[in-house]
Amino acid sequence: MNAVTPKVTQGPLPASYKVYKPGRMHPDIRVPMREIALHPTAGEPPVTVYDSSGPYTDPQADTDISAGLPRLREAWIRARGDVAPYEARHVKPEDNGFATGDRLTPEFPRHNKPLRATGGKAVTQLAYARAGIVTPEMEFITIRENLGRMELCKDIARDGESFGAAIPDFVTPEFVRDEVAKGRAIIPANINHPETEPMIIGRNFLVKINANIGNSAVTSSMANEVDKMVWAIRWGADTVMDLSTGRNIHNIREWIIRNSPVPIGTVPIYQALEKVGGIAEELTWEVYRDTLIEQAEQGVDYFTIHAGVRLHYIPLTVDRTTGIVSRGGSIIAKWCLHHHRESFLYEHFAEICDICRAYDVSFSLGDGLRPGSIADANDAAQFAELETLGELTQIAWEKDCQVMIEGPGHVPMHKIKANMDKQLDTCGEAPFYTLGPLTTDIAPGYDHITSGIGAAMIGWFGTAMLCYVTPKEHLGLPDRDDVKTGVITYKIAAHAADLAKGHPAAQIRDDALSRARFEFRWEDQFNLSLDPETARDFHDQTLPKEAHKVAHFCSMCGPKFCSMRISHDIRAEAQKEGMAAMAEKYRDGGDLYMPADQQD
Amino acid sequence: MNAVTPKVTQGPLPASYKVYKPGRMHPDIRVPMREIALHPTAGEPPVTVYDSSGPYTDPQADTDISAGLPRLREAWIRARGDVAPYEARHVKPEDNGFATGDRLTPEFPRHNKPLRATGGKAVTQLAYARAGIVTPEMEFITIRENLGRMELCKDIARDGESFGAAIPDFVTPEFVRDEVAKGRAIIPANINHPETEPMIIGRNFLVKINANIGNSAVTSSMANEVDKMVWAIRWGADTVMDLSTGRNIHNIREWIIRNSPVPIGTVPIYQALEKVGGIAEELTWEVYRDTLIEQAEQGVDYFTIHAGVRLHYIPLTVDRTTGIVSRGGSIIAKWCLHHHRESFLYEHFAEICDICRAYDVSFSLGDGLRPGSIADANDAAQFAELETLGELTQIAWEKDCQVMIEGPGHVPMHKIKANMDKQLDTCGEAPFYTLGPLTTDIAPGYDHITSGIGAAMIGWFGTAMLCYVTPKEHLGLPDRDDVKTGVITYKIAAHAADLAKGHPAAQIRDDALSRARFEFRWEDQFNLSLDPETARDFHDQTLPKEAHKVAHFCSMCGPKFCSMRISHDIRAEAQKEGMAAMAEKYRDGGDLYMPADQQD
Repeated sequence: MNAVTPKVTQGPLPASYKVYKPGRMHPDIRVPMREIALHPTAGEPPVTVYDSSGPYTDPQADTDISAGLPRLREAWIRARGDVAPYEARHVKPEDNGFATGDRLTPEFPRHNKPLRATGGKAVTQLAYARAGIVTPEMEFITIRENLGRMELCKDIARDGESFGAAIPDFVTPEFVRDEVAKGRAIIPANINHPETEPMIIGRNFLVKINANIGNSAVTSSMANEVDKMVWAIRWGADTVMDLSTGRNIHNIREWIIRNSPVPIGTVPIYQALEKVGGIAEELTWEVYRDTLIEQAEQGVDYFTIHAGVRLHYIPLTVDRTTGIVSRGGSIIAKWCLHHHRESFLYEHFAEICDICRAYDVSFSLGDGLRPGSIADANDAAQFAELETLGELTQIAWEKDCQVMIEGPGHVPMHKIKANMDKQLDTCGEAPFYTLGPLTTDIAPGYDHITSGIGAAMIGWFGTAMLCYVTPKEHLGLPDRDDVKTGVITYKIAAHAADLAKGHPAAQIRDDALSRARFEFRWEDQFNLSLDPETARDFHDQTLPKEAHKVAHFCSMCGPKFCSMRISHDIRAEAQKEGMAAMAEKYRDGGDLYMPADQQD
Repeated sequence: MNAVTPKVTQGPLPASYKVYKPGRMHPDIRVPMREIALHPTAGEPPVTVYDSSGPYTDPQADTDISAGLPRLREAWIRARGDVAPYEARHVKPEDNGFATGDRLTPEFPRHNKPLRATGGKAVTQLAYARAGIVTPEMEFITIRENLGRMELCKDIARDGESFGAAIPDFVTPEFVRDEVAKGRAIIPANINHPETEPMIIGRNFLVKINANIGNSAVTSSMANEVDKMVWAIRWGADTVMDLSTGRNIHNIREWIIRNSPVPIGTVPIYQALEKVGGIAEELTWEVYRDTLIEQAEQGVDYFTIHAGVRLHYIPLTVDRTTGIVSRGGSIIAKWCLHHHRESFLYEHFAEICDICRAYDVSFSLGDGLRPGSIADANDAAQFAELETLGELTQIAWEKDCQVMIEGPGHVPMHKIKANMDKQLDTCGEAPFYTLGPLTTDIAPGYDHITSGIGAAMIGWFGTAMLCYVTPKEHLGLPDRDDVKTGVITYKIAAHAADLAKGHPAAQIRDDALSRARFEFRWEDQFNLSLDPETARDFHDQTLPKEAHKVAHFCSMCGPKFCSMRISHDIRAEAQKEGMAAMAEKYRDGGDLYMPADQQD
């Protein structure tokens, strides 16, 4: 099993090429962006878009899955002088669920000694930010978030409703540093994952999305998961969570991390549970702690930790329609119940912080008691846990650890904003990271859509990262097609949110695509789409000929009924006559019908 | 071409059977509903859902496409004593775009003389409502909208934000009459379409959806369109618009109407344009008027009429990013420009009302100047036209005509509510009927999703009917799969809106499905879904065996990690101990960490 190097999808998207923008403070920085070239008749420069796809879409890059990606941050990390390599924890049979022989996923071929903070220092981006240091990561992010908008849209009018967010016209390195220092944004960047291209999660930056991958006890393999990771970032995933729960968790994760240019998140309790044979009550702090170190050494960038599931909250879930639906939450709840005590996550939270600060693993404080149905939305259990997450945020911040807060789940539209408001209030403006929320329960098979609605709204209200939901949610493990559908749906939600928040650069792509549409530049319309292949395919299903790519109509209406073609005629006529004169003349036509209120 | 009787999809949905509820005031009324049977272990009654699918899903019904549906409203219409049959307008070659021989779609085999009001009377549901008459249509709708909720949810708590709507706990015949009389709801019900099962469109009723079908000059045929109509209502379309623009418009429409249990809408200018060879400036009032009568005689239930496109608004569109994107709007604009005068729609609007009141054709006042891009949303042209639509509404109401108002289009999230508020204010609370709106332009191929987000929101804010957008929007003519995807997406949006508005019966289905999910009743979970076939298929892709339909896990997490299974364990343990005691005991555990604000 898995003896072959995984195959992943490579090569640029249509009409797209990768550019790298250099840093100023840190000249060795090369920030990747994607430029989408337009047809010469457009007379427009290429459209620059955010690019999370890594070297896989760069034909100049020489990617080799069995070697891993270039370790671009390694020099930056070492230059700070606060870390040292050491002998890694020994990999144990239980780390891979006791898989052996053919059933054991092979180890990743290359090994690097892990780094760790020296002298008890915090090596987190938060610690540096508080110390007034603009790290290379921060400058990288500055350039990345601006997307060349200093050149492109000097005179763009700000238009939007941001509900108290503070999105700047232009991002500066100092702004990034300050947002991180305030805890309002995080940069997930484990020192042992130097392959990452730095990115930021915060309400005053572009809305991000996460894609979940991972095998389960029932199905999937390492090659599939590496392929899914590369596939997810190709379509725009900003981070990827590896939620593997079966055997081979350690080795699969290593392959994923070494080849991932985006931050990788995990839920360490899943692997810990595998190590104790799947029996929740046999979990111990020692097993869990060892798992945290194991994963921190590998380079996991953020941990979901359900430390907010407190013993006395569990009874609040018993009368729910759907109980506890978070896997991690239910495991912890079961443990608490069995031992009749607070969880080791809660009791040892300060020690967990000490581990995280030594590697710069960010917290994603898990919502173990999130609602799993419309019936349970915004209930006492959910909001009680959120209060505790607020307390834990303060503890983590005191330890210089970066924190984001996970949110629901299943919430009808009229209860979404209360989640955002309460999270901002309770958790000191730490970034919010929500799963959907699904706005109805009645459409299994379409939960990317039921949740895309909620995701767009909560993103608008201020959620910093949206965790995707695929069409398979509630039904099965997503395959490659589901991953793509989930990612595209969430890119839509995130972008719709950026537009509504009034992000100064967001509308550039909409406008470029709309102009292409109006000018019948079909190729440009496809290429500017989030999914050029599908757009082209849909068009070609009825009009496959190359000639139709320059036709001034499509199969929806046919040539005689094309409103856009007619609009061009109108515009031509208007230009002949002069607009001002035309308007004046028309207005003289007068009203043929009196307004109703003047007719009596 | 088209010599064969169309094949349509028939038979019930899984675990569903059709029931008919009788009227009280009008005992011959039989209101169709779908009951979804649950597994015996549920110990729950069947879930009753709104059913727009007509006799096609009733195995007892004997449907014959070449005979048409039963004319269930005919006796009600004739009993009112205000209509008389007459010799129909003669069908002319241009009605079918001069198609001949093999290219001519055959006539529908049966003919009925059309009815028309006698003595200049208004035979509209609005006229009856104003006269204090509860028609059989109104009682039918009363029963239909209640969905048995008087029995099922006597004690359901109202929960939602309806933005000033007045949704009653229970719908009464008098409530329906009153809403229609006030113009806040319409019952599209042409006296020449007695096959319809009456339905209502209004902010204080369930949110409805429309599906567009229709051939174009480029592709498609009668058999396809009849099949699409039946397919669209199978998945939940409440009305269907026939937007055909090629040849054979008259004959295709006849086949559709005779077999449609839902109201059919059209845009008569499309056919009028065909009659003048596609040259907009050659349109005349006489050709248009003749087309209205032709379609009213066939039984079209509502006309989209772009009478709000006034001459002096056209210059307002010239600097837009995407000009005029409404097909009808652009045709009228071109005509106005050429003749330099107000359109015949505007000039003859009172005469159009006289036609509509004689057949009870409802108005769908078209938004010919709706924005076609984010850049053009909420602009001067759009809102100027809306003011005119408000004036026309008053004129139509004076003629006892039923009116709804069409809305956009492409609107970013933060500008959606202004559309709803302005429409309510300007158009006297006439029902709003919007296309989407799309919340971003950057995802051609996924515009069911970009628009489903906007549709859910504007539905929540008060839009009464949502016109679907399919994945093919902007790219090509939708096929059968696209129609289904569009309908399901919009059923999600409409239902999410009903939930958020606090419709008293909306959550029943969510709760039933959530209970099925929590209790591992997989079959019930599939059957309660908007699309049982897809839900089942997605589950079976990884776990195809029958045994897995009773398994207490799925392939997402596998058996060891199933949070719901663990929740059951927790519940069992809690029940042993007694909840109150458990909660008390846990609370005594006390706080291990002080809240942050008490730590200083």
